[in-house]
Amino acid sequence: MTRYEEVAAALRQRIEHDLYRVGDRLPSLRRVCEEFQVSVSTAQEAFRRLEDAALIEARPRSGFFVLPRHVPDQLPAMSRPAQCPLDVSQWDDVLDLVGMPGSHPLLMLGTGIPDLKAPTLRPLTRQLATLHRRHDPADLNYDSLIGSLALRQQVVRLAAASGCLLHPDDVLITTGCQEALSIAIRATTSPGDVVVVDSPSFYGTLQILKANGLKALEIPTDPRTGISLEALELALEQWPVKAIQVTPTCNNPLGYTMPEARKAALVALAKRFDVAIIEDDIYGDLAYGHPRPRTLKSFDTDGRVLLCSGFSKTLSPGLRVGWLAPGCYRDRAMHMKYVSTGASAKVPQLAVAEFIAHGHYERHLREVSRQYQRHRDSMIGWINACFPAGTGVSYPQGGFMLWLELPGGVDCHALNQRLAEQHIRIAPGTLFSASGKYRHCLRINHAAPLTDAVSQAIRCVGATVATMVDEQAATPVDAEAW
Amino acid sequence: MTRYEEVAAALRQRIEHDLYRVGDRLPSLRRVCEEFQVSVSTAQEAFRRLEDAALIEARPRSGFFVLPRHVPDQLPAMSRPAQCPLDVSQWDDVLDLVGMPGSHPLLMLGTGIPDLKAPTLRPLTRQLATLHRRHDPADLNYDSLIGSLALRQQVVRLAAASGCLLHPDDVLITTGCQEALSIAIRATTSPGDVVVVDSPSFYGTLQILKANGLKALEIPTDPRTGISLEALELALEQWPVKAIQVTPTCNNPLGYTMPEARKAALVALAKRFDVAIIEDDIYGDLAYGHPRPRTLKSFDTDGRVLLCSGFSKTLSPGLRVGWLAPGCYRDRAMHMKYVSTGASAKVPQLAVAEFIAHGHYERHLREVSRQYQRHRDSMIGWINACFPAGTGVSYPQGGFMLWLELPGGVDCHALNQRLAEQHIRIAPGTLFSASGKYRHCLRINHAAPLTDAVSQAIRCVGATVATMVDEQAATPVDAEAW
Repeated sequence: MTRYEEVAAALRQRIEHDLYRVGDRLPSLRRVCEEFQVSVSTAQEAFRRLEDAALIEARPRSGFFVLPRHVPDQLPAMSRPAQCPLDVSQWDDVLDLVGMPGSHPLLMLGTGIPDLKAPTLRPLTRQLATLHRRHDPADLNYDSLIGSLALRQQVVRLAAASGCLLHPDDVLITTGCQEALSIAIRATTSPGDVVVVDSPSFYGTLQILKANGLKALEIPTDPRTGISLEALELALEQWPVKAIQVTPTCNNPLGYTMPEARKAALVALAKRFDVAIIEDDIYGDLAYGHPRPRTLKSFDTDGRVLLCSGFSKTLSPGLRVGWLAPGCYRDRAMHMKYVSTGASAKVPQLAVAEFIAHGHYERHLREVSRQYQRHRDSMIGWINACFPAGTGVSYPQGGFMLWLELPGGVDCHALNQRLAEQHIRIAPGTLFSASGKYRHCLRINHAAPLTDAVSQAIRCVGATVATMVDEQAATPVDAEAW
Repeated sequence: MTRYEEVAAALRQRIEHDLYRVGDRLPSLRRVCEEFQVSVSTAQEAFRRLEDAALIEARPRSGFFVLPRHVPDQLPAMSRPAQCPLDVSQWDDVLDLVGMPGSHPLLMLGTGIPDLKAPTLRPLTRQLATLHRRHDPADLNYDSLIGSLALRQQVVRLAAASGCLLHPDDVLITTGCQEALSIAIRATTSPGDVVVVDSPSFYGTLQILKANGLKALEIPTDPRTGISLEALELALEQWPVKAIQVTPTCNNPLGYTMPEARKAALVALAKRFDVAIIEDDIYGDLAYGHPRPRTLKSFDTDGRVLLCSGFSKTLSPGLRVGWLAPGCYRDRAMHMKYVSTGASAKVPQLAVAEFIAHGHYERHLREVSRQYQRHRDSMIGWINACFPAGTGVSYPQGGFMLWLELPGGVDCHALNQRLAEQHIRIAPGTLFSASGKYRHCLRINHAAPLTDAVSQAIRCVGATVATMVDEQAATPVDAEAW
C-alpha cells in the first residue's frame, strides 16, 4: 500500500465509523499533512481517492465535505432459475427495447447507454474528425482481419491492468462487444450444445444462444458474489456443458463483482470439467474501486477463457469498437470474424487507440466512474424513499445499472403499460432470462445526469409500483407463478 | 429511347462497323447536330455516353477520337464443378488473402479493392469529418437496429434504378455486404442444408456456408450468361436445396451480367421449387452500361429474393456500410442482425446518405465505371500480348475483376510461389470453389490506375505462366487432375 493509500484508508475508516458524518467538513490539507507526516501532494492524492470513491466532494474555497451515502434497504434475493437447459425465447421483448429508433418520445430508464454528454469524450470526436480530414486512401481500405495494431497494442495495456498478460496478436478487434460475444460463442459450440449462463443474464448473449440453436442452462446467482459455484458444479456434473458465459465484473444487470477467490475457483472448475469460459468484461473498466478488478482471463492457464470487451459502455456504442482475446480458440474465432463482417472499420479503431495513448481514456474513466457511483447512491436514496417496502435493489460495484426486485408479484410488462401514459419505460426483467423469468424485476440506468425529469420519473415508477402492490394485495394471485 | 440515346446508338454502330477506326476523329459536334437535327446539348450528351462506354475520348481543342478496344482472344470455358453438395474447405487460402495487414511489400494483383484514390471520393471524407466535428451525442449512441432512415431512403432510390420498388422499412443496414450475406444465409437455412452457388463463386459466401455447417452445390456457370438454368433445374429436382446464392450482375469473379430473360427465368425456377434466392449485388452499380441492369429482386413477386449490397466496392470497404432487403425473411434477418453486431455504426451511414443525396455518388460512379472499363480493355490487351496461347480471359460488363484460365494445367499456387520473388501475388482460383477446383485459374483486379509497376507485373505474370506451360509440356501430367 502506498503512503497516499494509507492516508486515504485512514480517512475512509473515520467516515465509515461516523467520526465525520454527512455534510461534515474534513480536516484541511495542511492538518492532514501534519497528522500523517506526508507531503501536500500525497495528501491531495489521498483526498482525490476519496473523491473517486464518491465519499467526499470538494467545495470551492471551503474544503472537502462528506457526501450522503445510500445503501439499499434490501438486496434482491439469490436467483432461482430453472435447473435444466432451455431454449431461449423473449426475442420480441428484446426487439421492443433495441429495435426502437434513437429519437423517440419515451424517457427510457432501462437502456444500456453510457453518458454520451461527458465533456471528457470531446478528444475522441476531434480525433475522428482529424483522421477523416486527412483523407488517407489507406484509411478507406479494408483493415487486416485481426484489426489495427495501434489499437491492439493499447488493448494489451488495458488488459494488463486487469491482470492479463496478452500479446497484440492474442487480440482480435471486433465490431462492438456483441460481435466478440457472438464469435466467442460460435467458436466454442455447435448447434444443440448447452451453455451455462449467470442468471439474470445479458439479453444480447441469450439471443446469440437462440440464434445458434444452443440451450441456456441458467445458474442461481447471488446479487453480491455472482454465479453460485456450488450450483455450477452440480450442473457441470449433470449436463454436457460446452461453455460457461458470465459477466463476473460490474455485472449486467446485477452490478456485483465476483470476489477474486471465486473467480479463481470458477476458472479451476471450468478446467476440471474441460469447459470453455466466455467472459464478458464490457463494464469492467467502469469499476468504482482502484485498481480495477482482475478478469477471469487473468487466472487462465491454458487458453480456455475467451475474454470479450470493447468501448461501447466506456466511450460510445455508436463507434462499434470491441475486442476479443480468444485464447486457444483463435483459429475458429478468426474464421467466425471473417464470415461475420470481414475486417472491422479502421478509422474508429485508430481514433480509440489515439484516445487511450494520449491519456484521455484514463481521465474519462475516472470522471464517469465517479459520476456513476454518485448517481448510484442518489438513485438508491430515491428508490428507498419512493418504492414500497420489500423492494430489493442491487448495490453495484461499477457500471451504471440498478436491478430492482419488486414485491407482491408486480408484473413489469403491466408496469410498462401503465408508465406509457407518463412517457416512461423501464427494461423488464424477462429480457434477462431464457424463459421469461423475472417478470417482477426491472433494470434502471443511472449513467446520464440525474435531471429533475429523471428524479420525477423514478418517483412516478415507485408510486405506480406501490399502487400495483396495493391492487395485488386486494386480489391475491398464485405466488408460484413467479 | 431518348433522342440522345438514339444519336449515341447510331454513332456506336458506325464505330463497331469500323466506319471509324481506332484513332480516327469523329465528326464535330456541329456536324452531328446538323445530321441528326438535334440541339448541341443533345449531341454533347450522346458523345458523353460514348465516352462513358470507353469507345471514344475527348482531346482538348481537337475533338473526339475512337479508342482502342481489346476483347479477349479466348473466353474461359463453361465451368464444370462437382455435381453434388460438398463441404466447403479452402479457409487457409482465403485467410492467406484477407488476413494480411493493409501495408505489405507485395504487389497484390488479386484483391477486391476499388480505386480509393479517386478524387470523386473527397466529399465523403469531408462529410465524415464534418459529422464528427459537430460532436452530437446522438451520433455516439446506438443507432436503431434497422439502420438510419436517411440512408435507407437513399438506398430505396438506388434500388429503384435497378427495377426494385422498396419501402425504407424493407431495407436493413448492415456492417458491410459480408454481414448482409451472412444474415441472409442464416435467415434462410439451418445447419446441414444445401445451398446452390454459381461457380466460380465469391469466397466470402462460400466461407459463410462453411461456418454455418451448410453444403455448397456448385452449378456450371457460363462466363457470359451466368449460372446454367438447365443444370440448376436438374439440381433442384435432385437435391433438397434451401437457397440459391448468386451474383448475377457484374459477377465476381467472372464479370458477366445475366441477361434479363435469364434473370426472370431464375426467379421463376426458384418460385417453382420454393427456394429462397440470396442475390449479391455489391458490384451492380459498377455496370459499364446505362441504365444499370435489373436485379433478380426486381422480378421477385413473393419476397423470396434477399438482395444484399453495400458501398464497399463503389466507395470504401473501410467504412463497412452494407444493406440487405430481406423480403419475407425480415423477422429472422432482424434477429440475425441483432446477434451479429447489434445496430451498425451511425456516422458512416449518415455520411454515405449525404454523399448520395448531394449527387456525389452518381458522379463518382460515372467516373470510376468509365475508368474500370478503360482499364479492362488495356489489361485485356496486355494479357492477349503477354500470356501464352490458350489463356482464357473473361470480358466483364462491370466491376473491376478479370478471371483468367491458364492453359496446360498451370497451378496458380505454384505460380504465386514463383511470383513471390518478384513481390507479386495473384488470387488463386481455388478460393472460388468449395472444394479447391480452379487451380489453373486466377483473378486480377483492374481498379487502380494502371501504373508502369502494374503493367510490368502483368507482363511478369504472363512470362512466368509461359515458362510454366513450357515446363509442363516437357513433363506431361494427368490432365484429369484439373
